[in-house]
Amino acid sequence: MRTFQTKKLDEAISLALAHVEPITESESIPTTDSFGRVLAEDILCPEDLPGFARSAMDGYAVRAQDTAGASREHPVTLRIIGSVEMGQDPRTLPDLLPGEACEIPTGGPMPPSADAVIMLEETARQNNDVVQLFSAVTPGTHVLAADSDFRRGELVFKAGHKLRAVDIGALLAMGILSVRVYRRVRVGIISTGSELVEAHEKIRLGQVRQINSHILRGLIESQSAQSLFFGIVPDEREKIRAAVQHAVSESDMVLLSGGSSVGARDWTLQILQDLGQVFVHGLQIRPGKPTICAIIERKPVMGLPGNPVSCALVFEKFVRPVLARRSGLKVLLPSHRLASAQLIQTVRSAVGREDFVAVRVRIDEADGTLYAEPILGHSHNISTLARADGIVRIPAELEEIPEGAQVWVELL
Amino acid sequence: MRTFQTKKLDEAISLALAHVEPITESESIPTTDSFGRVLAEDILCPEDLPGFARSAMDGYAVRAQDTAGASREHPVTLRIIGSVEMGQDPRTLPDLLPGEACEIPTGGPMPPSADAVIMLEETARQNNDVVQLFSAVTPGTHVLAADSDFRRGELVFKAGHKLRAVDIGALLAMGILSVRVYRRVRVGIISTGSELVEAHEKIRLGQVRQINSHILRGLIESQSAQSLFFGIVPDEREKIRAAVQHAVSESDMVLLSGGSSVGARDWTLQILQDLGQVFVHGLQIRPGKPTICAIIERKPVMGLPGNPVSCALVFEKFVRPVLARRSGLKVLLPSHRLASAQLIQTVRSAVGREDFVAVRVRIDEADGTLYAEPILGHSHNISTLARADGIVRIPAELEEIPEGAQVWVELL
Repeated sequence: MRTFQTKKLDEAISLALAHVEPITESESIPTTDSFGRVLAEDILCPEDLPGFARSAMDGYAVRAQDTAGASREHPVTLRIIGSVEMGQDPRTLPDLLPGEACEIPTGGPMPPSADAVIMLEETARQNNDVVQLFSAVTPGTHVLAADSDFRRGELVFKAGHKLRAVDIGALLAMGILSVRVYRRVRVGIISTGSELVEAHEKIRLGQVRQINSHILRGLIESQSAQSLFFGIVPDEREKIRAAVQHAVSESDMVLLSGGSSVGARDWTLQILQDLGQVFVHGLQIRPGKPTICAIIERKPVMGLPGNPVSCALVFEKFVRPVLARRSGLKVLLPSHRLASAQLIQTVRSAVGREDFVAVRVRIDEADGTLYAEPILGHSHNISTLARADGIVRIPAELEEIPEGAQVWVELL
Repeated sequence: MRTFQTKKLDEAISLALAHVEPITESESIPTTDSFGRVLAEDILCPEDLPGFARSAMDGYAVRAQDTAGASREHPVTLRIIGSVEMGQDPRTLPDLLPGEACEIPTGGPMPPSADAVIMLEETARQNNDVVQLFSAVTPGTHVLAADSDFRRGELVFKAGHKLRAVDIGALLAMGILSVRVYRRVRVGIISTGSELVEAHEKIRLGQVRQINSHILRGLIESQSAQSLFFGIVPDEREKIRAAVQHAVSESDMVLLSGGSSVGARDWTLQILQDLGQVFVHGLQIRPGKPTICAIIERKPVMGLPGNPVSCALVFEKFVRPVLARRSGLKVLLPSHRLASAQLIQTVRSAVGREDFVAVRVRIDEADGTLYAEPILGHSHNISTLARADGIVRIPAELEEIPEGAQVWVELL
């Protein structure tokens, strides 16, 4: 059996990203349902947007040359020939002759012969037909050009972009009603452990309810992927091996959680080495050290620690980028909400190891200050995370973060 | 008509939170489907967890008193009487007599008469029956008590807590298969504007596709609320009034987007004042100044600017906390993922106004440094946000943030 050196988290991630291939299958779905999905095609804008020149202000559409020299002291007077309605076809608007102006609302289409807008605040209406201007404008002032939002043919989004709410808005603004996205990645989950029973089953003293698949499901689905649970497998080599083979054949990526006993841990490693290529075994992080990453049939297969705190943390820190890449995402930006808080108790670590400490965040209602209180629970205990609001990272090069320090809390 | 002073964003939020009542209706749902939902009940732990004493290490379960004086130089020898299996009923395990030890895996149940675990690394197995110990342990060493995860009767979550993936794990660990949560808040959306058509409709020059309801839908649903679209309403007072009344009767909260013309803006204000109580009119932020917040029939009704950039921004900054409170959430923690980036171009603002500038984030692949490039687009243009990765805030007390400054980008 090959032996492995434990790896720094960032090395392990780089290595994993170098090995993981994005899925290739895509599907066409309605744009309105594409939130969180990853584009499988480049999007080019099919038309100029908004498609007509619009006013950026409430005011009067004018011919800029007619406003020359206007000031508070020497206003220019123009004749009002009408009013632009929102949504009006600009081809139905009157041509402005010299000395004429047309009332226009923000967003209203520009009359064809007008080339600037003077804002309401710079004018005084004399009567129904006449307006005074207090300043001069140059051509284009307060006018949004017909292609000011998007230009026809412009590359709007690249394949590999994850669609956000505003992007759906942009696509619909261009009249793009369906998009080609990568299909959802199917993440298979296997829970190993002879002590495990399902939460709905009757439990006997000595047994433990299986929860990791449910924690992983929430984390996977919030990444717009799909989770498939392949059940609880006892700590028996042949059963684990069969489960891995089955899960790999049915999924795009597999997570094994558990095998907290020495034997089960060794079996998982042996099985993954036997079925594919293991390239990470052991992370220099706490919790989460006994983590494995392999490729089997060109699919990532990751062995996560069995205790729930380590399992959830390793998902956030290591599985998440792998899943993002497998989902077709090109650019990986931070995935956590951060809160700045004052640490109320020193936390300690060992140099050379990245530590993640669960903390509770308290808000001082009076001034809004946030305080982070370390939770010194065992990583066997799901209560450690249930009581926590987030995680504080102690970088490998630090031995401690002292009481009173301002820290970033990654919210759960 | 009452006149209003524009408000600072944090003042407006405090005022809104003081006016908004959480919904009261709740429903019982399966725990496995409760991700992102808000608890409507306190959760007390129904039983001690794990319910039996477990080992925290791979090693040997022992009677601590038998290990007294053990060291590398003077090991203590114990007789191995068996091996604990994962999931075994501890009542079936043998009693340890003086001088006896039992092999035990991490998580395995403690034999009843054992009170400590000595880790594998501190032992040497002599043969099948005999193990040498190289250190002494005290009672409780490496043992997780029967109530070490949760204690029976313990308050685990308070009503008003939003359930995360790890919380679902904690509930299932306790055998809690269903939970009472507030029902999803129904957020009604009205888009006003005579120039608007739906994205799937044929568009005529001068018209604009309605996108704000789709942007808002994505933002609302990612908050575990439900969005109801009440259609496009032209800029006509009676039609807007009727739409507001209808939406209020069918929803728990209403968002009006648009009315970008002066007239429409005034009508919205008049209608909301007429039907209820307006307490915010105008925010000292850019974009997003023409924002209204009212209570009608004890439901929040918010008027958002019509241009998509302002609409999305005001949702994030002002609607989000109001919706969270209306959803029953007790504690409001930061809602944005943050990335620290170096600003590559000075951004300017006016003192006394909070500015939000869209930025593109670029990653230097070589060293992972992030750079934030301001996007100087108009807030009429959805392209401003589609091109952006996030938003940089210029606080009210600053006139600018200079090129080269390290800034926090709130990722979209």
